[in-house]
Amino acid sequence: MILVNGHPAGSVNAMDRGLAYGDGVFRTLRMQAGQPAWWRDQYAKLATDCAALALNCPGEPELRAEVCRVAEAGQGVVKIILTRGSGMRGYAPTAGQTATRVVMASSLPPYAQADAPLDIHARWCSLRLAQQPRLAGIKHLNRLENVLARAEWDDQAITEGLLCDGSGTVISGVMSNLFWVRDGELFTPDVSQCGVAGVARARLLRAAARRDIPVHIVRQPPAAILAADEVMICNSVIGVRRVARLDDRVWPPAGWTETLKIALNEDLD
Amino acid sequence: MILVNGHPAGSVNAMDRGLAYGDGVFRTLRMQAGQPAWWRDQYAKLATDCAALALNCPGEPELRAEVCRVAEAGQGVVKIILTRGSGMRGYAPTAGQTATRVVMASSLPPYAQADAPLDIHARWCSLRLAQQPRLAGIKHLNRLENVLARAEWDDQAITEGLLCDGSGTVISGVMSNLFWVRDGELFTPDVSQCGVAGVARARLLRAAARRDIPVHIVRQPPAAILAADEVMICNSVIGVRRVARLDDRVWPPAGWTETLKIALNEDLD
Repeated sequence: MILVNGHPAGSVNAMDRGLAYGDGVFRTLRMQAGQPAWWRDQYAKLATDCAALALNCPGEPELRAEVCRVAEAGQGVVKIILTRGSGMRGYAPTAGQTATRVVMASSLPPYAQADAPLDIHARWCSLRLAQQPRLAGIKHLNRLENVLARAEWDDQAITEGLLCDGSGTVISGVMSNLFWVRDGELFTPDVSQCGVAGVARARLLRAAARRDIPVHIVRQPPAAILAADEVMICNSVIGVRRVARLDDRVWPPAGWTETLKIALNEDLD
Repeated sequence: MILVNGHPAGSVNAMDRGLAYGDGVFRTLRMQAGQPAWWRDQYAKLATDCAALALNCPGEPELRAEVCRVAEAGQGVVKIILTRGSGMRGYAPTAGQTATRVVMASSLPPYAQADAPLDIHARWCSLRLAQQPRLAGIKHLNRLENVLARAEWDDQAITEGLLCDGSGTVISGVMSNLFWVRDGELFTPDVSQCGVAGVARARLLRAAARRDIPVHIVRQPPAAILAADEVMICNSVIGVRRVARLDDRVWPPAGWTETLKIALNEDLD
């Protein structure tokens, strides 16, 4: 089922600014036992992203009700798209414009199923992310870079591609945030210039702080990943996964992924 | 009237990749006496942009017929949006996917009316365009930078904002390409790192070559614009306009804009 502005519908206005300009934000979240997982974080991130683009964010109870309504089976994935609404031609946003709200459900992708292996294979992408601090961190609808990067491979054995920015600094996966461990300390890229500050990333950072694991938010080249003891990707749909292979580099498990998978799902705050 | 995939419709599938990711391209063109102006260039640019993103481009006669059909009055503006079509969740594009084709008409904006003055006022925007050579030049649907830049002013006396990239190099206007003249030679920014290689820009470059006006495609700071004898913006809807004022800098006419306006509409090639 798809709800558009609260009503069952399969389509959006052809003049919507989400289509015209990618003028909006989105969330992809997992349903668990009929409830949206990590909902407090998901809604907070949505509200933060809306504020960054001066979009009107819908109220939390109303949106949560719609999420639960579309996920009829109480499981799978729900995607929320918020746009600046339908508009006249021209880039200028109209102040106070009514947002368009799309809430839709889908089944879990194979790599996110409960029985999917914790280990994944990844590769480096050749596309370099552009540095745009005004949009960095936001999960907005301008995702052509992700589309082009994801189009670099069709080997189904490879779950994720890793991306650098134009300066050769490692930023993230195509659909995930990136973490690595070295000498008992946790590292994740700075996403203040490009990339998305995902909810799973924020939860892992909090979990590490609770456990007194030192965390470093860094700008590092690919060599830092290759020198890691364990490399992980995370997002709201797959949780955390261990990168067992990255092109030709292979890692034996060092145990961190299992630990952080548990920490990710603690709901202490 | 709006045609979606050739049929009168007001909406597109909520799962369209144009909405989800801005995974598509667009054209905005002017109708003149029932015909799409500069059509050969418009279609060629659309085909080039589609090829750059591996999108299926519709056939020329079919698309032209749809453009003429939506512009019932034979004038105004027509916008064409092509997306990679509706898809399942996930960034991966499916090879050979059927594109979504939206063709819609609107009236001319006030600043593009026949009686609108040739002179316009402009300002510098504070937003810096990100450098992404994989997307530079393409008129794709990822336009949040343009939206944010256009939101920097609401003074209706100002028609256009000028943009630099992250290195402080002048690139373009928010909705236009930029030209300037100094000592009888024509200059326009390089758009190989960011910005759009518009049809009006291409036509002006050809027109200047026909008239043996030296043209330089450059990477220059704002000071180069301020030192110009005449500054112009151009796009397919407004044609060419003279920048009479740029924040506090005021220029008297030097005659170039009138000359290039005529040259822009020569249809010699």
